[in-house]
Amino acid sequence: MRVAVLGVGLIGGSIGLASRARTDAEVSGWDPDGELLDRALKLGAIESAADSPAAAVHGAELVFCAGPVASLPRQGAEAMEASASECAVTDVGSVKREVIAALGEQPRFVGGHPLAGAETSGVENARADLFDGARWYLTPTGQTGGLHYDRVQRFVADLGARPQAIDAERHDRLMATVSHLPHVLANLLVARAADALTSDAGRLPEIGPSFRDATRVAGANPAIWTDILSVNREAIAAEVEAVAGGLSEVAELLRAGDREAVSSWQAAAGERRRELVEGELAGGALSELRVLVPNRPGIVAEIALALGRGAVNIEDMALHPAADMRSGAISLFVAGDVEAERAAELVRELGHDVVRVQR
Amino acid sequence: MRVAVLGVGLIGGSIGLASRARTDAEVSGWDPDGELLDRALKLGAIESAADSPAAAVHGAELVFCAGPVASLPRQGAEAMEASASECAVTDVGSVKREVIAALGEQPRFVGGHPLAGAETSGVENARADLFDGARWYLTPTGQTGGLHYDRVQRFVADLGARPQAIDAERHDRLMATVSHLPHVLANLLVARAADALTSDAGRLPEIGPSFRDATRVAGANPAIWTDILSVNREAIAAEVEAVAGGLSEVAELLRAGDREAVSSWQAAAGERRRELVEGELAGGALSELRVLVPNRPGIVAEIALALGRGAVNIEDMALHPAADMRSGAISLFVAGDVEAERAAELVRELGHDVVRVQR
Repeated sequence: MRVAVLGVGLIGGSIGLASRARTDAEVSGWDPDGELLDRALKLGAIESAADSPAAAVHGAELVFCAGPVASLPRQGAEAMEASASECAVTDVGSVKREVIAALGEQPRFVGGHPLAGAETSGVENARADLFDGARWYLTPTGQTGGLHYDRVQRFVADLGARPQAIDAERHDRLMATVSHLPHVLANLLVARAADALTSDAGRLPEIGPSFRDATRVAGANPAIWTDILSVNREAIAAEVEAVAGGLSEVAELLRAGDREAVSSWQAAAGERRRELVEGELAGGALSELRVLVPNRPGIVAEIALALGRGAVNIEDMALHPAADMRSGAISLFVAGDVEAERAAELVRELGHDVVRVQR
Repeated sequence: MRVAVLGVGLIGGSIGLASRARTDAEVSGWDPDGELLDRALKLGAIESAADSPAAAVHGAELVFCAGPVASLPRQGAEAMEASASECAVTDVGSVKREVIAALGEQPRFVGGHPLAGAETSGVENARADLFDGARWYLTPTGQTGGLHYDRVQRFVADLGARPQAIDAERHDRLMATVSHLPHVLANLLVARAADALTSDAGRLPEIGPSFRDATRVAGANPAIWTDILSVNREAIAAEVEAVAGGLSEVAELLRAGDREAVSSWQAAAGERRRELVEGELAGGALSELRVLVPNRPGIVAEIALALGRGAVNIEDMALHPAADMRSGAISLFVAGDVEAERAAELVRELGHDVVRVQR
């Protein structure tokens, strides 16, 4: 089977590596950036480098369009036009409505979106195991051909992913909520804080870990995010307006001064987050252990090493440096109750104070 | 000099420990919870345990009111009534307007708020160095006595903190922006996601690191946060409404479909966050190194240990597990350019791929 990959960045490159490692597909690649294409070839992400999309898709039974999200309707159309009459064409864009509006009527086109790799970019970071266990959304329409859908679906499963069909519109709304909205809120939080602090000379220590966590993604990669915010603008705008409405309700709730209502609201948020985040992680409920430590080189190593020796895996970690940076707390998130107790014991043996955070 | 501490939790206990370690003050303590008072005594946070607020403040020249924030107007009034005519009384509440409205006209009362310890609670976590380098806001009014202000100010500086005067109203607005607002937004994000995902069986891997970071504080300690959200409700409600307005503008910006405007907005948010967060941390600009690793016990230790051996300090760390929890990325935040390069080198020597994230 021949597979073509158009656009050989992180995702396209990883598709190539995974295809070569886990299937018997021959992979040809194309990219508008010739240097990038060379690197992909050298890294073994593709077996042959084509000098045009048409050359890449020649003889292919499956084409992955993996260019920037705004380019996908055009790239998909090109691939459809150049490919053989039985070839399936799919894409990997993180927004689906636009490309489906353009190509969803054609039986051979199957929209797709693997939830992987958002944290890095570039073919240098491509990995054969990038999609292991990852959700890979597919957005078939009433016109999608069954055999084409089946081919895409089987292939991405072979790459290690877990395919799931979803309506394109619902997909974009879901992404707006759980991925795009946090970015918008982070940007706004930063803007509010910058305004509030501008006139304050002693700005430094006012910003605590809650602010840092909440704004970590503020202003993330403007090239990629301008694309996403532009292409998914309708769904994001709707979501943003819903949050604006929610905030007005919260303002009312607060002004009403009903402590019990505020308390229930706060408790419900904690409960919901636990469900969402713990549901996400393998190995059951996460426990948080808070360790108070001096902030010096080696301290994280010492703790993590002790846990590693004890075969306890750290699912997540957050550092909370004190204002003077000389001391602080480390939150360790450990899956499973027994493991959490074991972890606490191991850290105590190092002489540190550990608190199991009750949430 | 005699100092009294009313309420011996994390903050009260740390004031006691720091006073005893760094000043020649004798510290008496009181707490409505007798068991807690005993523990504070055993831990050496106080030298004597009083059986009433009046007994604790007897003969004191300085009283710290360190009860829950909603109790402070009453606790402060009790301390004022029971204390001698030259005794200064201060508090440590994270919201200031209410207590200042109640007591700010009295020359002996000086409102205060140390920015420390939000991450843990309980006298077991009290430390003599909790306030080292921390901002300690003081909220004098036109009626505050100069000698009383001076006494409080010198004493908290002796505890290791950096006192700074601020208007009570401005303080509450500032806290609403940089601390209380992130909590409200985290709660709302969680609510939106829970609604969006309720009908979706395959909910697990849809939630990425951006969502987890943005919602880490959702539903934090309902007892403490109900107090804060209730007592500072006016400032928070105003801030929440401002963000609601900001969101409506963002929705417009997105719908207008002007890519350049979206791109500038995104870039500006990144720039502002860098200024805010990097300004906060000692040692200059933070660099982010992204390390791709297998997710197994010991991996964090291995990396952190190598950095520790190389005397590179990790200012902050974030784990980004892949969906299958078998692999992932670790973000290391390192202060200083040379240190970041050194850190990247050390990690590469371990055989891991490192990307210096361009932000």
